[in-house]
Amino acid sequence: MNMPGIEQIIALYASYAACLDEQRFNDWPDFFTSDCVYRVIPRENHDAGLPLATISLSGVGGLRDRVYGVTSTLFHAPYYQRHIISLPCVKGADGEALLVETNYLVLRTKRDQLSEVFNTGRYIDRIVMTDAGLKFAQKLCVFDSELIPNSLIYPI
Amino acid sequence: MNMPGIEQIIALYASYAACLDEQRFNDWPDFFTSDCVYRVIPRENHDAGLPLATISLSGVGGLRDRVYGVTSTLFHAPYYQRHIISLPCVKGADGEALLVETNYLVLRTKRDQLSEVFNTGRYIDRIVMTDAGLKFAQKLCVFDSELIPNSLIYPI
Amino acid sequence: MNMPGIEQIIALYASYAACLDEQRFNDWPDFFTSDCVYRVIPRENHDAGLPLATISLSGVGGLRDRVYGVTSTLFHAPYYQRHIISLPCVKGADGEALLVETNYLVLRTKRDQLSEVFNTGRYIDRIVMTDAGLKFAQKLCVFDSELIPNSLIYPI
Repeated sequence: MNMPGIEQIIALYASYAACLDEQRFNDWPDFFTSDCVYRVIPRENHDAGLPLATISLSGVGGLRDRVYGVTSTLFHAPYYQRHIISLPCVKGADGEALLVETNYLVLRTKRDQLSEVFNTGRYIDRIVMTDAGLKFAQKLCVFDSELIPNSLIYPI
Repeated sequence: MNMPGIEQIIALYASYAACLDEQRFNDWPDFFTSDCVYRVIPRENHDAGLPLATISLSGVGGLRDRVYGVTSTLFHAPYYQRHIISLPCVKGADGEALLVETNYLVLRTKRDQLSEVFNTGRYIDRIVMTDAGLKFAQKLCVFDSELIPNSLIYPI
Repeated sequence: MNMPGIEQIIALYASYAACLDEQRFNDWPDFFTSDCVYRVIPRENHDAGLPLATISLSGVGGLRDRVYGVTSTLFHAPYYQRHIISLPCVKGADGEALLVETNYLVLRTKRDQLSEVFNTGRYIDRIVMTDAGLKFAQKLCVFDSELIPNSLIYPI
């Protein structure tokens, strides 16, 4: 494939963050390939090669299921998320996939409270070009703190 | 017009942040067109279509007036600002204007205190090319928390 | 020299952040020229032209010495760092060097604690092209708060 340039990669991450922060959760699975892997995993487990993840989803169906849970069944106090995404690092290619990593920070704002650091870590992604544009074939969200303020509801 | 590329857009936001964080407030209006709109508005109001804004300025004259207030008349404890700007999202064009949105985080440091999260949200901007380079015809700073630690003095 | 474009500059900062955050400290000096200057300095001192810096290292040898200290002799509780780097600002050129500045935020996560704002400020860098790629001939880390939560151990 034609490897995407930095402009397209920036656009992908910026759109991804906007989708989540604007709470358009139904659009979120569209950023992934049909056979994708999405995992949110503590750094300690990831570094040690341990498989235990906080969230582990397979395929667009798994993501849609999660969205249904988040929007319809999980009982939680609502909060805003705000993604600050650092400069992305293109590590190379693996077959059809571009290997991209970038640090992220998610801030959380609860109603009538100050904004606060919620979750920070590193996206470890495999990005592929499809007929519908760039998609994540894999997105690992490897976060630094095992201690999460309350629970992690929305996708990271 | 020739649409600016990502390199020029990055340069614009990076220069904007530097101007504010270095407290060169007199240069701040130069980032705007003469008939600009600048608003700092809580997300809740923005999402509900309510007009009430924390700061609402029109035209470069309005901005210069605000700078005069900030530097000469408002009584406040000084603090440093530090803007961390996320990857920008080019949403499209509207006539002469480029529609660009990006998340931001402003950290605040008061004398003899730790740096802290001050304000986070989303810039919703209209950028136009002028003879003097790219300028903001509109900048909305839509912030997540209605609770602001003390008051918001300097531009965001 | 051929001036590097924004794509190469982004790659440099992204790789730099990854190196530190993954604690590959032995690779850290490789981002610098042999006769480099690396300083971590409070904003107040920097703005006043005062030379006193929190960390001041000269040459790759000075950096390797620091790495030895960090990894082998300094007694400290381990913590994770996470760099969020804002959009970089290319200020111009000075002879062979490209002058680049960018805001940064470093988050810290101690074991069994929440992630927190650790250090924020501005990189003021001189970047040169070498046979081994882009390197920092100078990196000043000008940070906003003189108050650092505990001590600053790892490079910023």
